[in-house]
Amino acid sequence: MATKTAPTLADVEAARGRVTGHARITPVYGSETLSRRAQRKVWLKAENLQRTGSFKVRGAVNKLSQLGDDERAAGVIAASAGNHGQAVAWAARELGIKATVFMPQDAPMAKVEATRNYGAETVLAGVGFDDALAAATDRARETSATFVHAFEDEAVIAGQGTIGLELAEELRDVETFVLPVGGGGLASGIAIALRALRPGVRLVGVQAGKTGRGTIADGIMVKYPGELTMSILDDLLDDLVHVDDESISEAITLLLERAKLVVEGAGAASTAAVLDGAVGGSGDVCVLLSGGNIDPTMLISVMRHGLTLAGRYLVFRTRIADRPGSLVELLELIAAERGNVVSVEHHREGMAIDVVETEVSLTVITRDEPHCNHLIGALESRGYVVARFR
Amino acid sequence: MATKTAPTLADVEAARGRVTGHARITPVYGSETLSRRAQRKVWLKAENLQRTGSFKVRGAVNKLSQLGDDERAAGVIAASAGNHGQAVAWAARELGIKATVFMPQDAPMAKVEATRNYGAETVLAGVGFDDALAAATDRARETSATFVHAFEDEAVIAGQGTIGLELAEELRDVETFVLPVGGGGLASGIAIALRALRPGVRLVGVQAGKTGRGTIADGIMVKYPGELTMSILDDLLDDLVHVDDESISEAITLLLERAKLVVEGAGAASTAAVLDGAVGGSGDVCVLLSGGNIDPTMLISVMRHGLTLAGRYLVFRTRIADRPGSLVELLELIAAERGNVVSVEHHREGMAIDVVETEVSLTVITRDEPHCNHLIGALESRGYVVARFR
Repeated sequence: MATKTAPTLADVEAARGRVTGHARITPVYGSETLSRRAQRKVWLKAENLQRTGSFKVRGAVNKLSQLGDDERAAGVIAASAGNHGQAVAWAARELGIKATVFMPQDAPMAKVEATRNYGAETVLAGVGFDDALAAATDRARETSATFVHAFEDEAVIAGQGTIGLELAEELRDVETFVLPVGGGGLASGIAIALRALRPGVRLVGVQAGKTGRGTIADGIMVKYPGELTMSILDDLLDDLVHVDDESISEAITLLLERAKLVVEGAGAASTAAVLDGAVGGSGDVCVLLSGGNIDPTMLISVMRHGLTLAGRYLVFRTRIADRPGSLVELLELIAAERGNVVSVEHHREGMAIDVVETEVSLTVITRDEPHCNHLIGALESRGYVVARFR
Repeated sequence: MATKTAPTLADVEAARGRVTGHARITPVYGSETLSRRAQRKVWLKAENLQRTGSFKVRGAVNKLSQLGDDERAAGVIAASAGNHGQAVAWAARELGIKATVFMPQDAPMAKVEATRNYGAETVLAGVGFDDALAAATDRARETSATFVHAFEDEAVIAGQGTIGLELAEELRDVETFVLPVGGGGLASGIAIALRALRPGVRLVGVQAGKTGRGTIADGIMVKYPGELTMSILDDLLDDLVHVDDESISEAITLLLERAKLVVEGAGAASTAAVLDGAVGGSGDVCVLLSGGNIDPTMLISVMRHGLTLAGRYLVFRTRIADRPGSLVELLELIAAERGNVVSVEHHREGMAIDVVETEVSLTVITRDEPHCNHLIGALESRGYVVARFR
């Protein structure tokens, strides 16, 4: 394979010509709540509202539109159980090219179906990403189809860089841009564009999780970062910071509740870094919401966790006398303390605790952590034994 | 009070001059998944991304910017525990006017805080909306502050109508526009603009719930619809349809998962009507997502319900032998059937069912309803007794 060289601003500008009319120009919003929390003006680039739910279509369209007639006829291949696979499938359909996407056997069913719905053939191969990747590159060699790498490719990087062109036009007064870094294609492309057009801005990359451990931000959990992308980022980023899953969960919940935007883990990492105070600088800051493809069941867990941590969701178990009126008494006490009960589970049958007691699990909407403590205190002072879940 | 007359297109155009620079021009998106489900092209007008999370700021800004100096000095008053209160608070702050918002004592804490954060004084008065309304109008009389009605007001209607001007420019080929109807201010304003600019389109209003009963779409549950708004809608709407909470829950879940947008019950009602096939017509259809202010705890319930109904979330209880390895056996069986376990609750202590058995509750991600049935069948054929929760 020939040595790859970093795309230039001209490459990114040429990419815009190819991407326009396919990818959306995504909106930018100021967020009052996030600005108040971060004590600086926070802007959101809502790339989660991009087609297929992530920025990846930009790079895929730029790559696929440069294929020659023979290459187009031979089709394209990708290995991905996530956003890249969906983006290649979608871009191929837009451009009338056949796509085959390889995924590990345990790929989430929703992702397999989404990729198929965009018109790609999907192949489930092997038990992990490495197996799927090997099967994909084997197939590409056998068939002369073009293998499309998710980030280590000049055309893909230049395509993602079109976000940088939009940002340079949309946000003239922003001092710091915060970009999630997985394979590095997104951050590289944007950094190339912004460094050229706005030399004075600060560019901060964000990584999530620890090597060898899972993270909620699976979109930026990459085993083998790109050589090309990493050399670009070494040159162009001012800083590279880390965030943990707790911060990401909180950011997802905040973006959902306040900005009305659904954002996946990797998409919330930049926001989490700003809220953590990890980003530095003091002027306006823009966070890139890179995608919104979070499984709804995962989203429910994250929201429950985020709300429970914030004390806005109190989940606890207690025991009440097994006689008429005892549940009503408990509920009246909670209501008097301004707690809003959303669910009651009554574990009546089969309990051996005590023949005259029965167990209930309650979920109560509360104002904040002090309110939770106050409510628990009120229950305990009336003799209830409260076991709280976090 | 003088008889009110319906605003004209000229009033709506004048409103746009006042609203521009305060309210956002919200984006319009085509949705592939919704179009496939509805078998017609579906466009989303994402007014949930409006400032304060709902369209209401348009009417509030238009109303407040027409106050004279004395009226501005005396301040404004609203009665609302929801979007209207937040919008009046926000518009008043934008225009440098003092706002007081009356809410019933049981108003959700998150809404009280949001209204306060926009700079309004909040007054908790009485046990229901009628009490808060009475207190608000009393205060307005005593203080000569201007009472801002949520919909029965020409300036408010004209302000909401600015959405119609945007739609007329953004969606030239749409045949049918579907608008939620609560008090009727939103639908009236949009209908005035669209009837004038696109006389041939079909305009369909959507109502939710039944009189005297609660609905998830509390934003369009209005006790006393406006006389003015209803006379406008009688004139201008082609049809008025109803949706139930089941359909709205499904629409909220779909918009969240596929469009990455958080939408409240009233905001999803138009989408629900289209998915239900209640809307009629056959060309492109635009649904108005009027707001995104849904309580996150409510959203969790809706999503769980929506996913469970769709068979994508299987929650069940079963019993396993109380010996090492029995839980592993169960989990392996579920994995072999391609179920993805997201939570296991082990109710070990205090169970009296049988000394050698223990109870577990599982939540499993499944593909669809047939997959659920298949999985339950596989468990039952191995002797497990499965109690499913819906």
